[in-house]
Amino acid sequence: MRVEDLAKNVGGRVVGHAETQIKGIADLDHAGEGEIAYVDNEKFFPAALASKASCLIVSQSEKFPDRTLIEVANPKLAFALIGAALHRVKREPSIHPTAVVASTANVASSAYIGPQVTIGEHVTVGENCVLHPGVVLYDGVTIGNRVILHAGVCIGADGFGYVRHELGYQKFPQIGTVVIEDDVEMGAYTCVDRAALGRTRIGRGTKLDNMVHVGHNCDIGERVVIAAQTGISGSVVIEDDCVIGGQVGFGDHTRVQKGAIIGSKAGILPGKIVRPGVWWGIPVQPLDQYKRMNAHLNKLAEMRDEIKQLRQEVAELKSIKSALPKTSQ
Amino acid sequence: MRVEDLAKNVGGRVVGHAETQIKGIADLDHAGEGEIAYVDNEKFFPAALASKASCLIVSQSEKFPDRTLIEVANPKLAFALIGAALHRVKREPSIHPTAVVASTANVASSAYIGPQVTIGEHVTVGENCVLHPGVVLYDGVTIGNRVILHAGVCIGADGFGYVRHELGYQKFPQIGTVVIEDDVEMGAYTCVDRAALGRTRIGRGTKLDNMVHVGHNCDIGERVVIAAQTGISGSVVIEDDCVIGGQVGFGDHTRVQKGAIIGSKAGILPGKIVRPGVWWGIPVQPLDQYKRMNAHLNKLAEMRDEIKQLRQEVAELKSIKSALPKTSQ
Amino acid sequence: MRVEDLAKNVGGRVVGHAETQIKGIADLDHAGEGEIAYVDNEKFFPAALASKASCLIVSQSEKFPDRTLIEVANPKLAFALIGAALHRVKREPSIHPTAVVASTANVASSAYIGPQVTIGEHVTVGENCVLHPGVVLYDGVTIGNRVILHAGVCIGADGFGYVRHELGYQKFPQIGTVVIEDDVEMGAYTCVDRAALGRTRIGRGTKLDNMVHVGHNCDIGERVVIAAQTGISGSVVIEDDCVIGGQVGFGDHTRVQKGAIIGSKAGILPGKIVRPGVWWGIPVQPLDQYKRMNAHLNKLAEMRDEIKQLRQEVAELKSIKSALPKTSQ
Repeated sequence: MRVEDLAKNVGGRVVGHAETQIKGIADLDHAGEGEIAYVDNEKFFPAALASKASCLIVSQSEKFPDRTLIEVANPKLAFALIGAALHRVKREPSIHPTAVVASTANVASSAYIGPQVTIGEHVTVGENCVLHPGVVLYDGVTIGNRVILHAGVCIGADGFGYVRHELGYQKFPQIGTVVIEDDVEMGAYTCVDRAALGRTRIGRGTKLDNMVHVGHNCDIGERVVIAAQTGISGSVVIEDDCVIGGQVGFGDHTRVQKGAIIGSKAGILPGKIVRPGVWWGIPVQPLDQYKRMNAHLNKLAEMRDEIKQLRQEVAELKSIKSALPKTSQ
Repeated sequence: MRVEDLAKNVGGRVVGHAETQIKGIADLDHAGEGEIAYVDNEKFFPAALASKASCLIVSQSEKFPDRTLIEVANPKLAFALIGAALHRVKREPSIHPTAVVASTANVASSAYIGPQVTIGEHVTVGENCVLHPGVVLYDGVTIGNRVILHAGVCIGADGFGYVRHELGYQKFPQIGTVVIEDDVEMGAYTCVDRAALGRTRIGRGTKLDNMVHVGHNCDIGERVVIAAQTGISGSVVIEDDCVIGGQVGFGDHTRVQKGAIIGSKAGILPGKIVRPGVWWGIPVQPLDQYKRMNAHLNKLAEMRDEIKQLRQEVAELKSIKSALPKTSQ
Repeated sequence: MRVEDLAKNVGGRVVGHAETQIKGIADLDHAGEGEIAYVDNEKFFPAALASKASCLIVSQSEKFPDRTLIEVANPKLAFALIGAALHRVKREPSIHPTAVVASTANVASSAYIGPQVTIGEHVTVGENCVLHPGVVLYDGVTIGNRVILHAGVCIGADGFGYVRHELGYQKFPQIGTVVIEDDVEMGAYTCVDRAALGRTRIGRGTKLDNMVHVGHNCDIGERVVIAAQTGISGSVVIEDDCVIGGQVGFGDHTRVQKGAIIGSKAGILPGKIVRPGVWWGIPVQPLDQYKRMNAHLNKLAEMRDEIKQLRQEVAELKSIKSALPKTSQ
């Protein structure tokens, strides 16, 4: 594709040779003839100036004289869009012969169903979905359009619920379902359990990394991002546009309000309401407060020294008291 | 089924119309004609009074006049039992044609073996087991009766053991086995490694959530409950009736004594003995102590202020000392 | 095999009956006729003396009179090597008929490819590799020689990268690859994501436990050991010979220098450089410092008591000041 065409696709302005042919994307250091790279941080200006890329995507064209450029407000976004256009992964709509698809399942003809996938009874899979090898969809779950499920994603296994009695545990019924909305992507081996009663939901445009656990009856909103290995207990609500780090743990019945950001490895106690803002730590607290506490913790040795010294000084002062003439006491 | 029959099954007392037909379970808010719900907490009495359920399972029938009720001591347990009776998942005993079962494996004819399952040489699978898609049983492991293994559960992979030498790592032999006793249930992608020598054991009636890791040579007792993403290093012993939260980490050779409860995200140092009681934190400590420490931590700012003020006051007092007449010193 | 032959293989010295036939390894307590065990710790000398093993591997032969022994400097290493020789797992080179191997993949004829494995386009698998059931190799990844991948290992799924825009998230291109070098072993369900651009690398002789997550563009060196459920964000560098515990979390762009040791459950902030030494905690700090901080934390109650007492004593002393005769002030 020509630079001019790429620029048009991302609403960018061409500087230099609009006719230059671009066949791929690369990073600044490795880009060569026919490749396009991006720079969105002054730190990388020297690498950009030295780059052999045939075209650069930049936000400040004046910094790169004599280069062919696409100028846009958000170079990284433009690069991602251009990359998607140039490296379109062609997955012919198909169901791999080793996939097991129940006769009652309703799989869109535009979907790609990879090897060793299992799709249970009464499942729905929407338009243009990509199910990588080994994905397991239990009976009755619903997958929207343009959903990408990486290897081994498991949707609809039983939630973890038991009732204790004298002899052991009775399984609580897990007869609800799961709804995955449009444009969701999930990393390898991420698991979303079915609801006990009702449904577990992953909202439109939400992205989950590898090995995330979503318990029964959770309601995860739209455009939520959750990094790898985070675990979400039952009946948790995460509202739209939240950003959750990796290895975070949510107690059951937590509610995270719209747009909140939770740092990696945080722990949220059951029933907690997490308000908008940035949160950190175990148990989770506002980032400012977490930082102050850490600053205090780093002063503990000093505090103990000071207390020790005060004790000595006070002991000395007390010895004066006993030495004072009677009249002055 | 009639309310009368359901009540009989759970040892409950019918109040109201014993002949009412019930065809399914539901929660209070969604239950309708022909459905049964339960209430075991005063908090939900208003929802119960407003519920359209044809029958309620309750512990205090006098609170719900003019309703058809089943009165029992433990409504949630009764609901779980009734749910199991009404929503019996029929899995015809079968081995899916895509499953790979070694000719030397001994699989009970009453077991259900799902798609893409792999069962190795000399494996035993007991009566009425359910192996969901993609389960992997390595050679020589033993699965008891009525065991439910969700998608991708992996039993008997090599334990993680190496001996360092000058050039790198020599694998330590992993030639032991795994025994899973009766009535165990494991969530998706939970892994139980084979013993180096000897066996790894999961005791009768124990329930593991998704993505739990059990290392080589562990001995997990009966009726133990372990939530998602908990990791258990080699040679750990967890005695009967323990309850373990999610994302807990156990150092090797830990022993958790009968009935202990360990909160989510706790960390247990290698070799530690965890006595009965409730434990929390990293490293793990008794919950009371953990709470006291957290209370202290929240006072750190105040403590630093107090030390600062004491320093000023002591400095002032010292200035008196130097001003005192010689005789009084 | 005869004791003499086994000793020769590990450079050991025979004491006693060199002709004794050994057919298997076992631990001290369970070893019997025809079995060999090892002892490398004085703690186990009584068990060794009582052991029914036909031969013991020891470092101090004088402690075990009247026994057939192999004396070596490192008994555990010798035991591991002898175990590997005696319990050689024969896996005939083969591709299981249920495996799906792309026609463009290049799989060495000496490799073992288990049931339900998926190997994508243009993948290379080296000599004597063992791929257990359900392994997934995405397109274009490279696996070295003698690599062991346990059940469900996933190599080359897309990295987790998105660019936020007004309407949601645009996927950042994930068109790089993964290189797994020789003699690597990975536990069940461990995931190594492909690079966005460039490559993700796992160095020669490195061992990963179950359910480890390695993000896009990471560079893990040679002879690195990483325990279960550790998560490594994008672009992390771990240099040669590091040892990483379980459930550790790495922020992106971290660098861990050669030989560093990081304790289980540690958390490393993005961009941090971890120098050689032993590290612990969240956020990670040198072990000494971590221990000192924990010692301080255990003194918090005492510190608060001391401050309280000091406050009383200072108040008392201040009352003297006001009682002093004018002249002495």
